[in-house]
Amino acid sequence: MNTTIQAAASVLTPEQIRFHWQGHRGLTRRVIDAFPEKELYEYSIGGMRPFATQAMELALIAAKGLNGFLTDNWNDATTDSISGRVKDYTPPATKAELLQLWDDITAEIDRVWPQIPVERWNEVVNAFGYGEQPMYGSWFYFLDNENHHRGQGYVYLRSLGIEPPPFWDRY
Amino acid sequence: MNTTIQAAASVLTPEQIRFHWQGHRGLTRRVIDAFPEKELYEYSIGGMRPFATQAMELALIAAKGLNGFLTDNWNDATTDSISGRVKDYTPPATKAELLQLWDDITAEIDRVWPQIPVERWNEVVNAFGYGEQPMYGSWFYFLDNENHHRGQGYVYLRSLGIEPPPFWDRY
Repeated sequence: MNTTIQAAASVLTPEQIRFHWQGHRGLTRRVIDAFPEKELYEYSIGGMRPFATQAMELALIAAKGLNGFLTDNWNDATTDSISGRVKDYTPPATKAELLQLWDDITAEIDRVWPQIPVERWNEVVNAFGYGEQPMYGSWFYFLDNENHHRGQGYVYLRSLGIEPPPFWDRY
Repeated sequence: MNTTIQAAASVLTPEQIRFHWQGHRGLTRRVIDAFPEKELYEYSIGGMRPFATQAMELALIAAKGLNGFLTDNWNDATTDSISGRVKDYTPPATKAELLQLWDDITAEIDRVWPQIPVERWNEVVNAFGYGEQPMYGSWFYFLDNENHHRGQGYVYLRSLGIEPPPFWDRY
């Protein structure tokens, strides 16, 4: 009986979550790529961080967050191809390297996702010490934070006279 | 059997969606309120819209989107207290009126949400003509769009020398 109620009340699967997130990550990649090299690393408004640093935060959260989803260890990215490359918030020295790191994390998400037990998503976790909540809420935080910072990147681009990629275009 | 699989594979309920959205709408309200009256309506970077106009888009999408969730009519807000007040993208003339409209829509969301049949969330809809997708995807678009524009509001505030409300603080 409880099972039936749960089925009737739920609307989103882990695969739908992965697909939605990767769509946004594809758009964020295009926003990174839209910046000229110099402005990606140096341009700022109102004392805020350059977009390369914001993007590196998003890359790190994705890599370490993916690992946390799987293992409940929120400190380091331990998945194969990412470990050792995302130890601090300093972005790689070039846009090409930042985009390569981004792409490697994208592939890791697709590779690791099916290994995350479905029951994990409603387990209470404390991702990165942000506070206890069901794990799907941590994923929402990562997604919302990415939209938040990428929106800031749009203002940087517009103020540089660069047309950003369309918000509605994913993948 | 299918019911059991669906239960095992789903992680999010309509109530969890409502709670998450309202948390963000509370933060957006504080960002609106953080602007001085004049700058809310006039300040711009890179030719982008003033935040009052962006916030009015978010208010309209919430009001009309809520109505669409319930009725699959995506053209107008027909719920009781909002109808007739959200006909175009021109924001109310004062911050106080914009915040009042925001609060009225917040109350409408709470009032109407339990009336939305749970099976609606995976029905394919074409919200505002954005393209066909399951209804939960339309809700995601509204949430993501709000994070996107509110992030832009953060840049406006920072460039005005105003500390924005913390991103992690909801409700």
